[in-house]
Amino acid sequence: MFNVRTDLAMEVRELYKERTKQEVEGVSVDVEEMGNVNITRVDIMNDYGAQVMGKAKGKYITLECKALRRADADLKDEVSQTLAKELKKLVVIKENPKILIVGLGNWNITPDALGPKVVSKVFVTRHLFKMYNKEGDKDLAEVSAISPGVMGTTGLETSEIIRGIVEKSKPDMVIAVDALASRKMERVNTTIQISTSGISPGSGVGNKRMALDKESLGIPVVAIGVPTVVDAATLTSDTIEMVINEFSNEAIVGSQFYNMLGELKEQEKYNLIREILEPYGANLVVTPKEVDEVIVNMAQIIANGINIAVHPSIDLKDVNRYLN
Amino acid sequence: MFNVRTDLAMEVRELYKERTKQEVEGVSVDVEEMGNVNITRVDIMNDYGAQVMGKAKGKYITLECKALRRADADLKDEVSQTLAKELKKLVVIKENPKILIVGLGNWNITPDALGPKVVSKVFVTRHLFKMYNKEGDKDLAEVSAISPGVMGTTGLETSEIIRGIVEKSKPDMVIAVDALASRKMERVNTTIQISTSGISPGSGVGNKRMALDKESLGIPVVAIGVPTVVDAATLTSDTIEMVINEFSNEAIVGSQFYNMLGELKEQEKYNLIREILEPYGANLVVTPKEVDEVIVNMAQIIANGINIAVHPSIDLKDVNRYLN
Amino acid sequence: MFNVRTDLAMEVRELYKERTKQEVEGVSVDVEEMGNVNITRVDIMNDYGAQVMGKAKGKYITLECKALRRADADLKDEVSQTLAKELKKLVVIKENPKILIVGLGNWNITPDALGPKVVSKVFVTRHLFKMYNKEGDKDLAEVSAISPGVMGTTGLETSEIIRGIVEKSKPDMVIAVDALASRKMERVNTTIQISTSGISPGSGVGNKRMALDKESLGIPVVAIGVPTVVDAATLTSDTIEMVINEFSNEAIVGSQFYNMLGELKEQEKYNLIREILEPYGANLVVTPKEVDEVIVNMAQIIANGINIAVHPSIDLKDVNRYLN
Amino acid sequence: MFNVRTDLAMEVRELYKERTKQEVEGVSVDVEEMGNVNITRVDIMNDYGAQVMGKAKGKYITLECKALRRADADLKDEVSQTLAKELKKLVVIKENPKILIVGLGNWNITPDALGPKVVSKVFVTRHLFKMYNKEGDKDLAEVSAISPGVMGTTGLETSEIIRGIVEKSKPDMVIAVDALASRKMERVNTTIQISTSGISPGSGVGNKRMALDKESLGIPVVAIGVPTVVDAATLTSDTIEMVINEFSNEAIVGSQFYNMLGELKEQEKYNLIREILEPYGANLVVTPKEVDEVIVNMAQIIANGINIAVHPSIDLKDVNRYLN
Repeated sequence: MFNVRTDLAMEVRELYKERTKQEVEGVSVDVEEMGNVNITRVDIMNDYGAQVMGKAKGKYITLECKALRRADADLKDEVSQTLAKELKKLVVIKENPKILIVGLGNWNITPDALGPKVVSKVFVTRHLFKMYNKEGDKDLAEVSAISPGVMGTTGLETSEIIRGIVEKSKPDMVIAVDALASRKMERVNTTIQISTSGISPGSGVGNKRMALDKESLGIPVVAIGVPTVVDAATLTSDTIEMVINEFSNEAIVGSQFYNMLGELKEQEKYNLIREILEPYGANLVVTPKEVDEVIVNMAQIIANGINIAVHPSIDLKDVNRYLN
Repeated sequence: MFNVRTDLAMEVRELYKERTKQEVEGVSVDVEEMGNVNITRVDIMNDYGAQVMGKAKGKYITLECKALRRADADLKDEVSQTLAKELKKLVVIKENPKILIVGLGNWNITPDALGPKVVSKVFVTRHLFKMYNKEGDKDLAEVSAISPGVMGTTGLETSEIIRGIVEKSKPDMVIAVDALASRKMERVNTTIQISTSGISPGSGVGNKRMALDKESLGIPVVAIGVPTVVDAATLTSDTIEMVINEFSNEAIVGSQFYNMLGELKEQEKYNLIREILEPYGANLVVTPKEVDEVIVNMAQIIANGINIAVHPSIDLKDVNRYLN
Repeated sequence: MFNVRTDLAMEVRELYKERTKQEVEGVSVDVEEMGNVNITRVDIMNDYGAQVMGKAKGKYITLECKALRRADADLKDEVSQTLAKELKKLVVIKENPKILIVGLGNWNITPDALGPKVVSKVFVTRHLFKMYNKEGDKDLAEVSAISPGVMGTTGLETSEIIRGIVEKSKPDMVIAVDALASRKMERVNTTIQISTSGISPGSGVGNKRMALDKESLGIPVVAIGVPTVVDAATLTSDTIEMVINEFSNEAIVGSQFYNMLGELKEQEKYNLIREILEPYGANLVVTPKEVDEVIVNMAQIIANGINIAVHPSIDLKDVNRYLN
Repeated sequence: MFNVRTDLAMEVRELYKERTKQEVEGVSVDVEEMGNVNITRVDIMNDYGAQVMGKAKGKYITLECKALRRADADLKDEVSQTLAKELKKLVVIKENPKILIVGLGNWNITPDALGPKVVSKVFVTRHLFKMYNKEGDKDLAEVSAISPGVMGTTGLETSEIIRGIVEKSKPDMVIAVDALASRKMERVNTTIQISTSGISPGSGVGNKRMALDKESLGIPVVAIGVPTVVDAATLTSDTIEMVINEFSNEAIVGSQFYNMLGELKEQEKYNLIREILEPYGANLVVTPKEVDEVIVNMAQIIANGINIAVHPSIDLKDVNRYLN
């Protein structure tokens, strides 16, 4: 229950490497440094890799920009453009694409509201295509967008809602945006993960039937996620590990002390975490105080990236000057 | 374009009667006074009535409570209970009903946000039925709820979204809540219309294909609406009419003056209205200043009414004490 | 009670001229056309002018930009810069100015929330001056800002709050921002009035003791206002006038008809307006539906103008790129 | 920098007792169990106690209600009434009291918005007393209320603002409401501290001049605070302590291992915490996900308690039925 929780493929791989000192078989990793933004490409190529990683097969591209937290407008623009460039490689740019953008998450819970906020900032055009009975346009893609809410407030599985809408409105692909959990504070609000393998709303629950992916929707799904919190249980668990490591480094290998350190049982760790986080358990998150403001900024960066990527004739100047 | 706009069947009938001094054929009208609440039941019984009224066949029940604007909690409760009682007559209470509640309107425009606010206050249970694999419950109905947004922000027709969700989640009926326009300020935020004939989101546009009704969804649709604005064009048009009437009452029938009054051409009236409302045209509304607060109150009254009506074991005490 | 209500000096003068066909004695008027923005300078120079205008002596500068409602970012910037230029002429730019910005109005009522929204977007520095014990800075002014709320929610007169703060924090001048009422829809959200004569919060009530001005605060007060509504009573009253004018133009001068038109008594007009607006009376406003979005845009334009005007080294590029 | 941070006097005393196994001299502690609510009364009676506790002399009364997090309306009412009862003992109920209620904190940061939210729900009457020129009333107290914002957004010290308002509006006492930090998650949103010793806005900064207390304002100040977060640094620090204690319990006293545990230097602990929380440092908080909803509930409980305590004729029925 209180394991390290992360939604980032690059962190799952990082954890695996920390523990085993090797890469996962069937998973390729590539790191590219591009000025202010580092890109890590994790490709889960086969079922074995998927099983070890606990993640579906597919590409996971992570953009990291440490300076993003205190970014000026120029740096934000650079990140939007990098995002747009990576998205363009994944978005099937056939002639006249029809794209449905889905904002996952609960708009009443600030760190979970990223998806709905992005949806409120993307440039939606589908109704105009319908009004003028147009099949395509050389400047604009046909874009629709929806924030379906979360199961606790709708009573509906998100995948039911989206499947219904896909059947009725027939887009060529879905771009789904969600807030994620990272393992490390340094990645919170500085990291964007793009993936081709779909997304599981409320994925902690782990009901495979409910994924939004090519299998369930019949069309490609590109997921964009930003870690906006660290689970308090993950932070606590990591803290315990680090204290133990600290002692281990100082202890003589083979001493009684050294051995004891290795023996702090999972159950004892679990009890410690439980005691510290009572009575909230898994429902606690660690966030920067000014999370409301941060989420607005990230939503703008991502909406800009999507707007540039999907519409043939929209560029950075347009999103900054006309679409805000 | 600048005709009197009203979404209330009782006002359409009132207008007809003002002009023709008679009732519409094929439309029955019944008025009941119940303490603080007056109930007007308009039943459009045949196609002729529907055509004259410009509204679909079906029952339109209007609750009016003049004092509601400054209501204390007891009066609000009385209105919730009257609403619940009327709803219960219309809601097919078969064993274990499955109900989808739809909040129409744009949650970013205060006087249009009634539907989404009601949705945020209704008691949603469907996911619990699914989680425990239950088919029915003697205390609770299976309720889901969604606010699909408006076409201008989603690019999707509301009826496409709802039809998709109905096909996937298979409710027995839909209750749709929307903000309406009235013709008269005195009815704004004091009046609730319930109707069995469905609803047309953004109905001014008048695209019949887009209605949410039994024909389009395959299940009964009960619509609940509250007028939250008067169109500024309607107010202006009515003002012109009243000035003319005022003069007419004083003029000698048959005099040049009297005749001129009757001859203020539609085009001249239209030009006057246009000049006054330029450059906003039909996009202006008249609202009380404190509209934000009023909408919250009305949403609570309606959500309470729905909660009491659909769940077999929920009563007024519960909604006030546990569900707020 | 139901007279034409306007907070714009240029409209008061316009009304006077419509009725008397001449200018007010003691009031000078100057109009300048500057590309997209028209500037009207009304200077109330003596007590007689003040009495006729019903406004305090002083300069009233009105910026009008008809296109502002559908403005792109370039036009918004132009308006911000024009505002900044006019403000700079009025703001006492002594060495190291200390400025208190006051956002008047109720942040819970959308069309009244302009002032608080501007305050949330101005660049505040006073605490930094205090922290580093600095008396002045060549790049930045010492700026503080507060939204005191309205008397109905605080129980305090705004002037009491501001006088207290002025005595404790000792600014050199106050810039007060407020939402106004215009007489004409075409000026709503397209017009900015700057004035040197202070401002009366909730001025309809008309308690002279409560003004924020040089007399009450002991330091210069520049007021910035934007009409965000037309009073429904004003709209209705103007509509009645226009109908009468319409008939008058067609009637033969001296005929019975013509004379009757002139005789619609004030009391009859008043009764008509009352009947139409019952039961809300003076508390109704006419706004564009999308008022929430419009207010955000105007607040940004004004905050940018203030930021450029008061801080010596901040220019347009900075406000767009770093201060949003 | 990364010490345990708590704003609760009962936790300071608890920490002292954990470390020293004794009570602080000059501090009396009394615990009372009252059904669902436990009350701890800490009285810091002399300067020595104040110095050891790091808190001003005065009474600190803490209400704890473990069940509050999932409370039904009856339990919330019980807490409001207990709060009212304790407040009444501290509020100087002279004839016709004049009370200023101050909501501290930043309304844009959810867990810090408790004070402003309480202010928006208290029953304000001062303007009515002024309007009717009344000196007193047997049913109602003369209440005003303000949320002054925080220094980072106003540039003004909160104490400057409040001192100015107190001088102008001359209340007999101040009730100040603020969000606090607790040391333990179990106290978050389940605990209310009332104190007679005033409050220091942004107290972490520790500028004594800025306190709101009898010394600075010249009138009694009662502070009401609710812990809404645990500092992430406190959580991490406590976790490290608990791991060390865990090992200590298992190690043989006097062994090399046992001694090492005691020697994890403060600097090493500090480095660990820093590494875990980088790059946010002291600016991270741990909150339950649904913090937005929780704050609304707590604000209602406290506003109800204040309304009952200060107005002679308002009781629980009134606050639930008429004042919400």
